Amino acid sequence: MVPDGDNRERLVCADCGFVRYENPRVIVGAVCAWRDRILMCRRAIPPRVGMWCLPSGFMELGESTEDGARREVWEEARATVDLVDLLAIYNLSHISQVHLMYRARMRSPDCAAGPESQEVALMTWDEVPWDALAYPNVAWALRQHRAMRGRANFAPLGIPAQGPADEAAAGR
Amino acid sequence: MVPDGDNRERLVCADCGFVRYENPRVIVGAVCAWRDRILMCRRAIPPRVGMWCLPSGFMELGESTEDGARREVWEEARATVDLVDLLAIYNLSHISQVHLMYRARMRSPDCAAGPESQEVALMTWDEVPWDALAYPNVAWALRQHRAMRGRANFAPLGIPAQGPADEAAAGR
Repeated sequence: MVPDGDNRERLVCADCGFVRYENPRVIVGAVCAWRDRILMCRRAIPPRVGMWCLPSGFMELGESTEDGARREVWEEARATVDLVDLLAIYNLSHISQVHLMYRARMRSPDCAAGPESQEVALMTWDEVPWDALAYPNVAWALRQHRAMRGRANFAPLGIPAQGPADEAAAGR
Repeated sequence: MVPDGDNRERLVCADCGFVRYENPRVIVGAVCAWRDRILMCRRAIPPRVGMWCLPSGFMELGESTEDGARREVWEEARATVDLVDLLAIYNLSHISQVHLMYRARMRSPDCAAGPESQEVALMTWDEVPWDALAYPNVAWALRQHRAMRGRANFAPLGIPAQGPADEAAAGR
């Protein structure tokens, strides 16, 4: 039903009137660099087990977007990073997700597979397994990270112009 | 309970195992300019009825952050705008909100109170009712909008440095 004063369907309790709002979710992650290498994770959990991605995941209650990105890097890759800036915002509106991808510097090359990763690796550009990336947005972020080397204080990038087909496939 | 493979408490159905995830919400809004004036709305609904704010509200399912900002401008102030860029990201982690405030240009000075506004106004800087703003983040966005006049392609701003006390009061 549409609650009083609202303009769209919501889940409303017929007894008490409680309205259960459903809103888009924020995914936070980071492109983490150690010298000329990028921290990649091989997924140990569905979907896309065995495919490679950047550390990222759902933002949790009570944390900032930056906190969340650092937490995901630790949870998935056991690495400690300093965030540099916000590289990109990807609106995946067909799945009601907003992805915030930060640039980060690793404090050391130390990393290890967390419970959601089969393995982690510090990869040079030539080592990136482009045919085994879990989602199109992994490639977007990797390419944009490379494109913005040496740049600072820029507006966060969005989905690349060639991205609509990719976007449709980006569901997680 | 903590679901298998997770690391924090979630609401889980004891019968079917369905996990009800709760995540932070995104608020989208805009500082909308017509020449040297800014579009302000006087709230008609709780909280802070009668106080002034910028058009903003909860992002909805199926829309992008930009779509949401334009929708809120229309719903609250019946104005049509072109978004320019992302002015600021405010993490209000104590209330699990992420605010994305865009810069926007009005296509005309046409505006009118939507159902959630008592009135709307195009205000010069000297007309802003600083003592009657609904939330600290309204002042943050207004000041940052002014500070960034003539600037383009910058990293979105955050909560101003003098902001912690403001932040604590920013609950909506």
